Amino acid sequence: MYRVENDLIGDLEIPESAYYGIQTQRAVNNFHITGVKLSNYPELIQALAYVKWAAAETNCELGVLDENIKNAIVQACQEIIAGKYNKEFPSDVIQGGAGTSTNMNINEVVANIALEIMGHKKGEYQFCSPHDHVNLSQSTNDAYPTSIKLAAINSNMVLIDHLKQLIESFRKKGKEFMHVLKMGRTQLQDAVPMTLGQEFEAFAETLSEDVERLTQNSNLFLEINMGATAIGTGLNAIPGYAELCAKKLAEITQLPFISAKNLVEATPDTGSYVIYSSALKRVAIKLSKICNDLRLLSSGPRCGLNEINLPAMQPGSSIMPGKVNPVIPEAMNQTCFKVIGNDLTVTMAAESGQLQLNVMEPVIAYSLLESVHILMNAMDCLRINCIDGITANEQHCKDMVLNSIGIVTALNPYIGYKNSTKIAKEALEKNLSVYDLVLENKLLSKEKLDEILNPQNMLGPHKYKD
Amino acid sequence: MYRVENDLIGDLEIPESAYYGIQTQRAVNNFHITGVKLSNYPELIQALAYVKWAAAETNCELGVLDENIKNAIVQACQEIIAGKYNKEFPSDVIQGGAGTSTNMNINEVVANIALEIMGHKKGEYQFCSPHDHVNLSQSTNDAYPTSIKLAAINSNMVLIDHLKQLIESFRKKGKEFMHVLKMGRTQLQDAVPMTLGQEFEAFAETLSEDVERLTQNSNLFLEINMGATAIGTGLNAIPGYAELCAKKLAEITQLPFISAKNLVEATPDTGSYVIYSSALKRVAIKLSKICNDLRLLSSGPRCGLNEINLPAMQPGSSIMPGKVNPVIPEAMNQTCFKVIGNDLTVTMAAESGQLQLNVMEPVIAYSLLESVHILMNAMDCLRINCIDGITANEQHCKDMVLNSIGIVTALNPYIGYKNSTKIAKEALEKNLSVYDLVLENKLLSKEKLDEILNPQNMLGPHKYKD
Amino acid sequence: MYRVENDLIGDLEIPESAYYGIQTQRAVNNFHITGVKLSNYPELIQALAYVKWAAAETNCELGVLDENIKNAIVQACQEIIAGKYNKEFPSDVIQGGAGTSTNMNINEVVANIALEIMGHKKGEYQFCSPHDHVNLSQSTNDAYPTSIKLAAINSNMVLIDHLKQLIESFRKKGKEFMHVLKMGRTQLQDAVPMTLGQEFEAFAETLSEDVERLTQNSNLFLEINMGATAIGTGLNAIPGYAELCAKKLAEITQLPFISAKNLVEATPDTGSYVIYSSALKRVAIKLSKICNDLRLLSSGPRCGLNEINLPAMQPGSSIMPGKVNPVIPEAMNQTCFKVIGNDLTVTMAAESGQLQLNVMEPVIAYSLLESVHILMNAMDCLRINCIDGITANEQHCKDMVLNSIGIVTALNPYIGYKNSTKIAKEALEKNLSVYDLVLENKLLSKEKLDEILNPQNMLGPHKYKD
Amino acid sequence: MYRVENDLIGDLEIPESAYYGIQTQRAVNNFHITGVKLSNYPELIQALAYVKWAAAETNCELGVLDENIKNAIVQACQEIIAGKYNKEFPSDVIQGGAGTSTNMNINEVVANIALEIMGHKKGEYQFCSPHDHVNLSQSTNDAYPTSIKLAAINSNMVLIDHLKQLIESFRKKGKEFMHVLKMGRTQLQDAVPMTLGQEFEAFAETLSEDVERLTQNSNLFLEINMGATAIGTGLNAIPGYAELCAKKLAEITQLPFISAKNLVEATPDTGSYVIYSSALKRVAIKLSKICNDLRLLSSGPRCGLNEINLPAMQPGSSIMPGKVNPVIPEAMNQTCFKVIGNDLTVTMAAESGQLQLNVMEPVIAYSLLESVHILMNAMDCLRINCIDGITANEQHCKDMVLNSIGIVTALNPYIGYKNSTKIAKEALEKNLSVYDLVLENKLLSKEKLDEILNPQNMLGPHKYKD
Repeated sequence: MYRVENDLIGDLEIPESAYYGIQTQRAVNNFHITGVKLSNYPELIQALAYVKWAAAETNCELGVLDENIKNAIVQACQEIIAGKYNKEFPSDVIQGGAGTSTNMNINEVVANIALEIMGHKKGEYQFCSPHDHVNLSQSTNDAYPTSIKLAAINSNMVLIDHLKQLIESFRKKGKEFMHVLKMGRTQLQDAVPMTLGQEFEAFAETLSEDVERLTQNSNLFLEINMGATAIGTGLNAIPGYAELCAKKLAEITQLPFISAKNLVEATPDTGSYVIYSSALKRVAIKLSKICNDLRLLSSGPRCGLNEINLPAMQPGSSIMPGKVNPVIPEAMNQTCFKVIGNDLTVTMAAESGQLQLNVMEPVIAYSLLESVHILMNAMDCLRINCIDGITANEQHCKDMVLNSIGIVTALNPYIGYKNSTKIAKEALEKNLSVYDLVLENKLLSKEKLDEILNPQNMLGPHKYKD
Repeated sequence: MYRVENDLIGDLEIPESAYYGIQTQRAVNNFHITGVKLSNYPELIQALAYVKWAAAETNCELGVLDENIKNAIVQACQEIIAGKYNKEFPSDVIQGGAGTSTNMNINEVVANIALEIMGHKKGEYQFCSPHDHVNLSQSTNDAYPTSIKLAAINSNMVLIDHLKQLIESFRKKGKEFMHVLKMGRTQLQDAVPMTLGQEFEAFAETLSEDVERLTQNSNLFLEINMGATAIGTGLNAIPGYAELCAKKLAEITQLPFISAKNLVEATPDTGSYVIYSSALKRVAIKLSKICNDLRLLSSGPRCGLNEINLPAMQPGSSIMPGKVNPVIPEAMNQTCFKVIGNDLTVTMAAESGQLQLNVMEPVIAYSLLESVHILMNAMDCLRINCIDGITANEQHCKDMVLNSIGIVTALNPYIGYKNSTKIAKEALEKNLSVYDLVLENKLLSKEKLDEILNPQNMLGPHKYKD
Repeated sequence: MYRVENDLIGDLEIPESAYYGIQTQRAVNNFHITGVKLSNYPELIQALAYVKWAAAETNCELGVLDENIKNAIVQACQEIIAGKYNKEFPSDVIQGGAGTSTNMNINEVVANIALEIMGHKKGEYQFCSPHDHVNLSQSTNDAYPTSIKLAAINSNMVLIDHLKQLIESFRKKGKEFMHVLKMGRTQLQDAVPMTLGQEFEAFAETLSEDVERLTQNSNLFLEINMGATAIGTGLNAIPGYAELCAKKLAEITQLPFISAKNLVEATPDTGSYVIYSSALKRVAIKLSKICNDLRLLSSGPRCGLNEINLPAMQPGSSIMPGKVNPVIPEAMNQTCFKVIGNDLTVTMAAESGQLQLNVMEPVIAYSLLESVHILMNAMDCLRINCIDGITANEQHCKDMVLNSIGIVTALNPYIGYKNSTKIAKEALEKNLSVYDLVLENKLLSKEKLDEILNPQNMLGPHKYKD
Repeated sequence: MYRVENDLIGDLEIPESAYYGIQTQRAVNNFHITGVKLSNYPELIQALAYVKWAAAETNCELGVLDENIKNAIVQACQEIIAGKYNKEFPSDVIQGGAGTSTNMNINEVVANIALEIMGHKKGEYQFCSPHDHVNLSQSTNDAYPTSIKLAAINSNMVLIDHLKQLIESFRKKGKEFMHVLKMGRTQLQDAVPMTLGQEFEAFAETLSEDVERLTQNSNLFLEINMGATAIGTGLNAIPGYAELCAKKLAEITQLPFISAKNLVEATPDTGSYVIYSSALKRVAIKLSKICNDLRLLSSGPRCGLNEINLPAMQPGSSIMPGKVNPVIPEAMNQTCFKVIGNDLTVTMAAESGQLQLNVMEPVIAYSLLESVHILMNAMDCLRINCIDGITANEQHCKDMVLNSIGIVTALNPYIGYKNSTKIAKEALEKNLSVYDLVLENKLLSKEKLDEILNPQNMLGPHKYKD
């Protein structure tokens, strides 16, 4: 069963049951690229509905939209936000037209739901038109980027929740391992002692800085260009519309949206996407570094560092029996590389803006949302399947410290860098211990040496001249 | 209904109907990252089955695998290749373990199908074991990259088919527009005349060079490391296995696979992925450039170059009536940015290999296959929805040439670069035509000038000294 | 004339006149990579000297460094800051050792200058040692990143100065062109009218947002890890050193440095470099987009948009007389691509950190400083050689608006989107004007139409229902 | 002392001694970007001279250039090739104009040298003009990319020489270490035994594949577009010029250059740069992976893998006495990141081509040549300062194998994967040896076990069923 709709290009049959209309159908026909649909990103659909809601309220308050129609539009938006119509958004996430297909998709779905609310049939657009009512005072070029920004803010908040849980997980291990003495390493060479707890606490700390960065950079999305219409000049929007619409959206979403001070600038500008994508990349870089460390620290079991044990999640090899691999950190590494690749996609798309618009916004939105989703999933995976179950090989960690040459560093303030160097060199060449060599060379008394080389004294600054 | 399977980690319930087994189930439980499953890439599943088939034949011929079991394995592989079991591959495309989950997934599915063929029940692995029979003489570290390579070769051949159709489409337009005189532009400035046909033929030609590059670089995948087992030393494979297995795979697939000459090198090496991904990037760069050109040439309709018309696929704007946008090339541009982002993912994954293995191969495989799929789809979209329907604004193209200053270039050989420069400058400043100025300055006779400035004479080299 | 110095590796001859010592000489011998020397980046040398100065003050105040030596060290640092010893920093900017060579280079130069100040000879390190005095309480792993951060803050301030000048230049043109009516374009298609002034003001505005981003992100460099020593545990530094040293550095530089709250985290962390590099990339993306626009707007002169004229800086072609090309924006585009490439270098270097250190900091520092330098130079070049001299083709701009179809958008509120679409389509197909068609179809009265289509009324929102 | 020259823009003073002319001077004035000059890349200057030489021969043979002038031009080119005039190329490597400044730089220098050869003064261009004689039948758009390609081929040959030396160096170590038994590792976990010689031989082998890739991809540069003139239509070139010029260049350079079959395609095409840059990236990825491995294998000395010792090139730390760091591989890693960054620059520049030209070629040329130079330098540095001096810790390597669990893999064919798994698990949990456990469980006789676990038997495939 079909109904026929009509546009600039001609007629087209639309499935009778569909709430979307002709332009959505054209998009479905035109773009078979990724197979990933808008409906994969419900936060984007919700955001589009919030924007249409705010616009309707604004138009009504400014006297250009009938209250009955407004009410129907608002109710339609609320139902979409509740998730009841996700399947009505079948367009590919990669699409030409700078988001026109997506904007028309929401316009059409809202209009048809509203029509039914008002007792009309789908397609009777004379009573509520996707263009003349739902899209009133708007253009794709303002409604679409505003929706992406709202979606990004919301998904960022969820991302941060997951990140915080991961941080907490590292922090717990930091406390659990606070007493585990181990060798610190710089340039992969034995350096000076630390505790495993310090190492895990540092993982927590470095990620917690990214909570700030993500928040700070996602706040740039709060500046929106509703009222810009086609190119930022506001043609066909009424005076006051831009500010009021930002205010309405802020009220509805409880997020402090403001109207960009220069709409001609704001309309083609993709700067906020670029720097937020960079913040995601920064998280990815850090998580990848941490996972590299986890894989190094758990290397072995007999021929590696073997300081920690990751939980065994699955047999490690189809040929090597008993092998257990760091599969969870490895999955995170790969996720991070994908996020970094997506950042390049965003970079190139942003650079390709021309004149009064950047038509590459759909792939920007897709890349950002995909990165957030896979990072979030991979962080949960890392936390639950790995971090929470890590155990320490405490004795082995301690043995390595006592056997190390790096502890000679603690002698610098007492015997000078030059003497320390000699001891270190001799210890290495003759396979002896630093401790024995210092005594043999009568550089320090046994008591003094014991005090200095007490590993606990090497874990932080202390007064060393007596 | 469940059956219980057991591995190094412990017991696990597997749905009775599932042909996959415990290790696949663990992968499903461990990795929720992208939501994209192996089953999205049937060419990879087919390739895995081909590799298991070749291994079974080799093992049987070398006397280490019973013929009955071999026959069952081969039949199982053939059924998988026929596409009957795609849904049995539910693992996420991003996974830790360097592909172990994928290799065990195929081992398990083959084993269970084979078991049923032999009259046993799923899970009765004593009669046909994923490890001891299906994976015999193999490791993930040889079977998995070999499968990726086979999948990449096959998907590359399909890609090339689609690319050739696109080339043909450009070539046709090249012929259709061969007589359409237009202005060539360098640095976006008017240069010298050419035909629109030359421009489209150049699009065809530049892409046809990529058919060669894709073929050449995908041929590097023909060197495989079957027989390497864990790290390339071939432990647990029998002498002669490596070469025979390559030969068997070549026979079955009709592709000239050979055994890498140094298996220790070949096992962690990702060089072929890197350069093939680069070849995909090169196609993406060219397609993006071509689409940029199409968008420039069709800019307007009144305030742009307006040399060609792209078919109107959908209304162009939710606010600007009658606007038609170059949505199809825009979708291709975005696809290309995604491919270029994927190339960076491959780059980082390849650089992360360590010692005897590169554990990041799953994200490499995913990125390569995703890029091939979206490029293929976008090329069809571009061909059908855009190129085939392009028309030329012939008169406007010609008018621009006649009105241009760039034609002065043709006078260089007759009046010298310096005089030509003067004419050009004056024409521009006084808004006059080059033609009139040359006559006015008596630099050439009218006949001579007509001959030189005959646009047809400017489309190629010709003897200019008389 | 040489003096002989000695280290862990052995003896080495140092030119008698050199203020640097054996470790610098080893670096020069070891690393011939780029040919670019530390001395190319005086801001880095200055920063190193500031850090050594602050450390000396701190050590002296905490009672571990003799006041005379401190005074000599401080004076040496001040002379270096004054630029007198730049040539003493001959190491390659790419070097292994996580900056050890650079840190030892400054230690050695300071020590030798200080020695001469105190009346000793170069090399008489018993009186002032690079290690035991200049590097006292420090490690490369704290002094080096702190210096990079200081250098980056300082170079960022200079960058912002240059950026502000460029913004001012765009803003001036924005005012100059405020009355020039022109067609706005989205997706390279004619959209609705705007002024050229709005377009240039938008360039100014979008860049001015980057002044904020650069400042905000460079502020992250204010958190330093002095006192961390080798791995952040502060071994060999005295209690209180970290905070006091940050305070001293803040006093000396007049920049509000603070000590990182977790030094074990801060020492290997490269997050601030990553996000600052991203901010540089964002500027590059915007400048590249702007230059793409300038090249589009000045395309022609007869067969392009031809809305503006860039100053002719050089003959444009070795074959096409009179051709003038947008060479300055082109140089900026290329500079931006280099900056974006450098950002990838930083990304990969940051991801490569391992355990308690990131040894790739030298290439990070080099990439950041190179990007700042070339951006700064290219911005001056763009401002002086291009923007300041741009002129508008006012009449041509206006003619295009009047001839356009896009003005039909202004009719939407009066005749509806559907009627407007019909008019637009007919105008395009029959090559007629929107104005005539509306009258012919009696859709509006002439007075009403004149009022609506008065271009001035289309430049912003206005009450449209009467 | 100055002479005055004149062009489209006006007059300009040129230093009397300068062989370059007005357009070079304009470039110097216009572009202060990187501070890196053309003269830094003598191979590019040589290539430009070769191209001008070939063009002069062609023009003369085709009868459009006087033989005396031709002879003077050829002699001038030969002197430039000999390196006598490098300092006459002061333009910045980043420049607008698609290389016009570089092409005019060589035109001017050749003209002025030729003038002196013919007994005229510099600047007397009526006797030999940069445009009308040196640039005859050419455009920047053909002469410049042809020169880049020749320069790239030549620098690639030098690169390959250096790469081969590095390969040889790895190969020697491969032989030296062929008997050193060690543990192979996959996913950083102990796998199965191999020899250190196999590991180094694999480094040699993987790089030797890049000799092929570099050669194959640099061969794409042999297709040139001389005769294309402005846009590939060949306007102002004589019939036959394209082919003859390619032939002449081939003769002079002894490289098999051919004329591109479609000059309109070849002129804006940057495909060969893209794929050659990718080949450089591939080398960088491999070298970075190898250096990561070297750093892992030499980690320690007491708390790491400690399988090999890198030569101590410099003291490793300003605070930790006796520490020796893997500084040379670290420098290589950083170099590789720069090369990968440059590849992104090339990617973006290539994607930015528009219509009949890619104006971003200067930054492409710069990035390619810079990458080749730094790779070459870093490879020498790695070979001489690191690889040649590596020693093995043979006993430690062997001890790790004997103590490992991974050797259980060799038992699979005898006791099955399941039993092997049990043994491995028990060995790990109880900290026992695999050997003892197998005997204790009576799974194999002592003789059989000894034979299987003889490490030499584990280094390759062997018949295992008796």
